[in-house]
Order: sequence, then structure tokens, then C-alpha cells
Amino acid sequence: MNIAVIGGGSLGLLLSSYLTENHKVTLYVRRAEQRDLILTKGISLKKNGTTKLAKVACALIDDLDEHDVYFICVKQTHIDRLLPALERLPETSKIVFLQNGMGHINKIDRLRAEVYVGVVEHGATRTSDREVSHLGVGKIKISPFKTTKDETALLEANLDERDFPVETVDDWEALLKAKLLINAVINPLTALFDVHNGAIVENAHIKHLAQKLTEETSQVLGFHYDEAWQHVMLVAENTKENTSSMRADILNRRETEIDAISGYLLQQGNERDIPYTSFIYEAILALEERGK
Amino acid sequence: MNIAVIGGGSLGLLLSSYLTENHKVTLYVRRAEQRDLILTKGISLKKNGTTKLAKVACALIDDLDEHDVYFICVKQTHIDRLLPALERLPETSKIVFLQNGMGHINKIDRLRAEVYVGVVEHGATRTSDREVSHLGVGKIKISPFKTTKDETALLEANLDERDFPVETVDDWEALLKAKLLINAVINPLTALFDVHNGAIVENAHIKHLAQKLTEETSQVLGFHYDEAWQHVMLVAENTKENTSSMRADILNRRETEIDAISGYLLQQGNERDIPYTSFIYEAILALEERGK
Repeated sequence: MNIAVIGGGSLGLLLSSYLTENHKVTLYVRRAEQRDLILTKGISLKKNGTTKLAKVACALIDDLDEHDVYFICVKQTHIDRLLPALERLPETSKIVFLQNGMGHINKIDRLRAEVYVGVVEHGATRTSDREVSHLGVGKIKISPFKTTKDETALLEANLDERDFPVETVDDWEALLKAKLLINAVINPLTALFDVHNGAIVENAHIKHLAQKLTEETSQVLGFHYDEAWQHVMLVAENTKENTSSMRADILNRRETEIDAISGYLLQQGNERDIPYTSFIYEAILALEERGK
Repeated sequence: MNIAVIGGGSLGLLLSSYLTENHKVTLYVRRAEQRDLILTKGISLKKNGTTKLAKVACALIDDLDEHDVYFICVKQTHIDRLLPALERLPETSKIVFLQNGMGHINKIDRLRAEVYVGVVEHGATRTSDREVSHLGVGKIKISPFKTTKDETALLEANLDERDFPVETVDDWEALLKAKLLINAVINPLTALFDVHNGAIVENAHIKHLAQKLTEETSQVLGFHYDEAWQHVMLVAENTKENTSSMRADILNRRETEIDAISGYLLQQGNERDIPYTSFIYEAILALEERGK
């Protein structure tokens, strides 16, 4: 397939370097500096102590061309500035949104193209503009969102590889909500306390706060608390050595996705009913402001 | 007067070095190591770039002798282990409790001695077992708590000095509650976000959280919110360069006084009504556990 990967962060670099083995891939980035670096030196993928080099076509997002499939790998907060270009894409294009949170959902159903949403369960860290470390191998789950001709199975068949599994999921809402739960509990707590994911279950007081946030998130999203908490604990244990993306953002003084995560829950819920979520939302914004 | 200062922390060192100028002072500490250091080298008081040496008698708390006045300068959390010794003191002794929080109030009214409570508005940091920096000159306010023969005015007259003012206050409850308000808002927030006191009003999101904590504290202690918030802002601005004692405790991996402060409010109030206080209480305990 002819694939566009939009966004030069950790996920964009990871996808580009894997998909380029069997597909024609163009990575779209925002800065000319990063484009030139990738065009001349390629993307370096580190995994289990070995490094693999991928030569990938690279262009600026402003020069977006036509492709079969578009993987949107920018942060939730950058979706708005991308929408005008995506609105011009023909009806036959497939666009796959891989954002955390659900803030983009109301915006993407007016696109002409076939729209899919997905969640990424890989652990990956960008160590430079052209280098990415693949720390935890997970899955990419893709679900049809707005489509007249559901081709999720086709995407899966084309993309699925041993080292880079892709799975089809029917219910996009359940898929995104399950990811949102994890993001609303593990991400802000690990960022606030500057701890790895395992601290969610290892530190008794962070665990207590995680339970409160799980209660509130379950209430807003319509989950049973017990199942939700089991899920949070499982993910925290499975990724216990990992640094969450929000903690990495705070450590690197970057803007976080707190608005798309806890901010989304606050929009759906009543602030008085989810005070722990409200506290953590302000706390992450406070860390962002402190880091400026 | 013949004065006992109990506790070798920043406040105990500060009081001992000032009071020794006009009084016979014995400083009581817990560790023989600190006692020996003070007996041989004295207490070094730093202020405005100059250093003053005070020769002070020093003994272990276990060897507590009889004095006219006892200043209790241990942390709230250490009051319990001190009570048996204080219970043995004669009725004519004056004991002045200078703790943060109000957790000790129920325990100290069964002492035989005359009991006073006070709050300390000095900024002081202990830099070693025998060195203390006097960073912000404030006041010590003393109020009669349980006394048949109120001699607060006598204490004030005897202790008040130009560089070390002592003031009498009638209403001990109002005095302690006003201090508790400050401690419940400024201390945990500056500790959690690792910021100086001024950030309470300078960082918009920390300020938002401070307002929420002020609302909840006012509700429990019976303050008007507007006046309480004015008071918090005034103190934060007046001490904007200061490191709160709780932040210093977290930075030095010491136990904090969160139980005597936010923990006290949680005991008084209903957790559901003061969720921000409940969040910050768990958050400080999480930092303590992380620091272990």
C-alpha cells in the first residue's frame, strides 16, 4: 500500500520504520530540519540492543500528497491544525486516527474520507529527530469509525506482521474508552509523582489516588468499577518499568495531552462529581506552567 | 527565667540561641550525637550574612529537669512520646506548645502544668545539627490554653526582644486555626509541586488548587472564604522566596506534618465534602513513600 504517516514523534517514527519494509511509506513532519535529517540519514530503530536503519521518504505536512492510507500520529492537541488538509482528501482515502483521548471524535466525522480510529499499545520513546527506541512490543488495534466500505480487515491483513501486530476491533467506542481509562489514571499520576508505571500499584498512596480516578472515570464512561480497576492494575503491572508519555512530556517540558484525557472527562462529567480528576487536571497544567 | 527548649530542629535551635542572651536555657534533644556537638561547639545562628555563636546547655530529652518554662519545639508527630514526661511536671510549670496543626489539642489539656499554645512566624532552616539560618524574621504569638493563672503577659514581657518579638493573643483557637489554614494550603501545594511559596499566587493552576483548598479548609474551620483567601495570598506574597517546612521535609526525605494538618481537617470534616484536601493528603503521603 501507499501509506502516509503524519507526525514525526515517537509513534510516527515507529510506524514508518516498520511499515516501510513492505509498503511505500512517506513520513510527514512539521519542521524542515527533521525532514532533511530523515531524508539524508533515515530512521534509526532501536530494539533489544540492536539498531535497524530504515530509509523512508519524508516531506512537510504542508505538502501532503495523495495516498491509500493516512496514519495520523500527531498529538490530540495538533489535530485542529491538520483538519483542513484532511478535509480535502478524496472519499476513497482511508484515514486512521491513533490519538489518545476522545477529544477528536466530534471533529473527524465530517471528513469525506473513510475514517478509522485505533489505539497503540507499543512503548516507544523518541530519542532524537530520527531515532526511536521500541521499548515494549504491543499491538495496534483498529476499528471502523465513519466508513461506507469497512476495510479494517483489509488494513489488518496488509499491515499485520510478526513484530508489529495489527488487530481489528468492532466497537470503536469501547476501544477508545478502554484506552482513555488507562490514560486518565496512569498517565497523570505517573507524571505528577515522577514515577514509572509500576508505582501505580506499588506505592500505597498513589494506588489509593488511582482507585479514586478509576472510580470517577468509570462513572463518566459507564464502566463497572471492579473490571476497570482490574484492567488498570494489569496494564500498570505489564508496563511497570515504562515511563508514561505524559511523564516523558513533563520531563522534557513539552505540552501534555491532559486536555484530551482528563479535560475530556471533565467536559462529559460534572466537576463536583469527579473532583479527583479535576485536581489532577489542574496539577498537570501546573507542572506544565512550572516547566515553562 | 529558667527555660527548657525541647527539640533540636530549626525552631529549637532558633529559640535557644535567641533566648540564651537573657535567660538560662537548656536545649533538650533526642540524640547524644547532637547533644555532644552543641555542648562542645555551641549553636551557630546565621542571619543576613553574619554568624553568631551561642553557648547553650544541652541534654537528652530523657533527662528532662525542672524549669520555669518549657517550649515544646518537636514536630506534632513526636508529641505522643513526649507526653509521659510532661505529665510529671509540677502544676507551677508553664508549657508552651509551638506545633503546627491542631492534632495535639485533645492531648494537652490533661497536663497538670499551665499550658499555653503558640504559633511561630519565623522562617528558619536547620543546616546542620548545630547550625540554623534565620531567613525571615517574624513573631511568636502565645495564647493561654489551659491555665488557672494566666501569665501570658509575663511571658511576653520576659521574652519579647527587638530581634525576637513575642506577642500575646487572647483566643488560642482563632490563633491556631489561622495558622492551620496557611499550613493546609501553602505547605502541601509547595511540597507537591516543589516550588517556593510565591508560586501559590504566581502559577495560575496552583492558585486554582489553593483556592479549592482554602474553600474546603474554611468550610471545616468556619472561616469566611473571602477573608481566608486574602490571608493565604498575603502570606504567600510576604514569604514568596521561602521554602515551606513541608517542601523542605520532602526534599530532605523526612516525615512531614501532613497528618497534623490535612489529616486533622479530614478527621473533622467529611471526606466527600473536602476531596481536594483528601487528594493532597494522599499525595504528600505518596511523596513520603516514594522518597523512602
